Amino acid sequence: MVAAFAALGGQRVWSLMISLFGDLAQGHGDAIDGPVLSTIMAALGVRPEASRVALHRLRNDGWLQSRKVGRISQHSLTAQGRAESAAASPRIYAAPPDLSEPWQMVLTEENGRETDKNLRAGGFVSVTPRVYIGPMGSTAPKGSLALQGEAPPDWLRRAAEPVALEAEYDALLSALMAVEQQMARTSQMNALDIAVLRCLIVHNWRRLVLKHPALPGGLMRRDWAGYQCHLRVDGLLRRYPRPALQDLAAASAVA
Amino acid sequence: MVAAFAALGGQRVWSLMISLFGDLAQGHGDAIDGPVLSTIMAALGVRPEASRVALHRLRNDGWLQSRKVGRISQHSLTAQGRAESAAASPRIYAAPPDLSEPWQMVLTEENGRETDKNLRAGGFVSVTPRVYIGPMGSTAPKGSLALQGEAPPDWLRRAAEPVALEAEYDALLSALMAVEQQMARTSQMNALDIAVLRCLIVHNWRRLVLKHPALPGGLMRRDWAGYQCHLRVDGLLRRYPRPALQDLAAASAVA
Repeated sequence: MVAAFAALGGQRVWSLMISLFGDLAQGHGDAIDGPVLSTIMAALGVRPEASRVALHRLRNDGWLQSRKVGRISQHSLTAQGRAESAAASPRIYAAPPDLSEPWQMVLTEENGRETDKNLRAGGFVSVTPRVYIGPMGSTAPKGSLALQGEAPPDWLRRAAEPVALEAEYDALLSALMAVEQQMARTSQMNALDIAVLRCLIVHNWRRLVLKHPALPGGLMRRDWAGYQCHLRVDGLLRRYPRPALQDLAAASAVA
Repeated sequence: MVAAFAALGGQRVWSLMISLFGDLAQGHGDAIDGPVLSTIMAALGVRPEASRVALHRLRNDGWLQSRKVGRISQHSLTAQGRAESAAASPRIYAAPPDLSEPWQMVLTEENGRETDKNLRAGGFVSVTPRVYIGPMGSTAPKGSLALQGEAPPDWLRRAAEPVALEAEYDALLSALMAVEQQMARTSQMNALDIAVLRCLIVHNWRRLVLKHPALPGGLMRRDWAGYQCHLRVDGLLRRYPRPALQDLAAASAVA
């Protein structure tokens, strides 16, 4: 399972840890026990020393906090860490879009830098100077022409895709398909196995999906790797729901 | 009346004569008697010699034909002249468009010369490379994105206007307004007066309107001089309908 994702790169330990806490312990008061964290990080192929360094860094950066409870440490997201996780979650955990979702085309009056910035911030993608496509819900700049999209030709759908991430989405798709096959052969998954699987999926998915605006489904090619990844990420996360923190502690005590 | 239009330029005699025949004698078998033609051309401020030269030229070019009937000559459009007049008539005599007439926006895949040529031939106007606006009825190139237009901002309406003709449309509008005032003070118009008035209107209108594609009403500014001219051309031509050729002959015999 770890092997399938290992080739994807970008497995910086502190970043993996953010994915892990964001997935398992985003709730107020949620904490992960030190032994549970060690077991999961080990299962992710991270050496104990590297885990300690990452933990230290994330504490310094204000993402995580730790406290001693009896003989063990409990680690949790800080208020800031929870807020940042919460801000990213809607994108990360969104269901795949309906491919008939409405979209719009915007033609601006001028080719202005400020307008361009605002449009991109609103989830629009530039097709050619002054022409943008994006979600129906985003507001077009005042004075621009905004038309409801219909039947986008294939080249327009492709123009909306983040081409710079093409190879990375292809690689993620291969990894997800390998994991699906592996899961089909696996009968038993305990809470720790699931935590590790979810961390790998969430981590590798968020690395890509947060790098580009959310495309409206109506502009998506069904066979775009990004969409195919989304279907699989969504399917796997539903099939293996987030384990409860007590179950993790119990599984870790047994292990 | 003639004075109001004299400043507009482009009053080449042969071209004026084409406007006259197109307006008065476009029907199969229609002919204008020599004396009637001379009277009208004189009223238009054309010297007899210039009329004769134009007539000669148009006969040589295959636009007009003349035949002797008794002691007078009768002049008529050739089959070719009639066909060319008929081809231009729908544009010249079209009613002003409804300003809510639908329009479309087309985004082409490439910035190709051939596609551009075809779109312009179909009545589209280029807004920026790859982006065209035009009538709903025209066919967008295969593979392009075509969206139904809605609520065009003012700059887009202006972008659709033939800017090169702006000064000429302004001048025509002034002339038409002057003629309207003059007509309000004129009680009696005989068939010859009407023929002259119509010739001046049709001639000066067609010189401009045939130089650019017909814009769909939905893309037109109400106060665009081209639209304001259209309203007045249409109003005057309706108020002074085409006189019958016999009435012209009778009026000319009296004159």
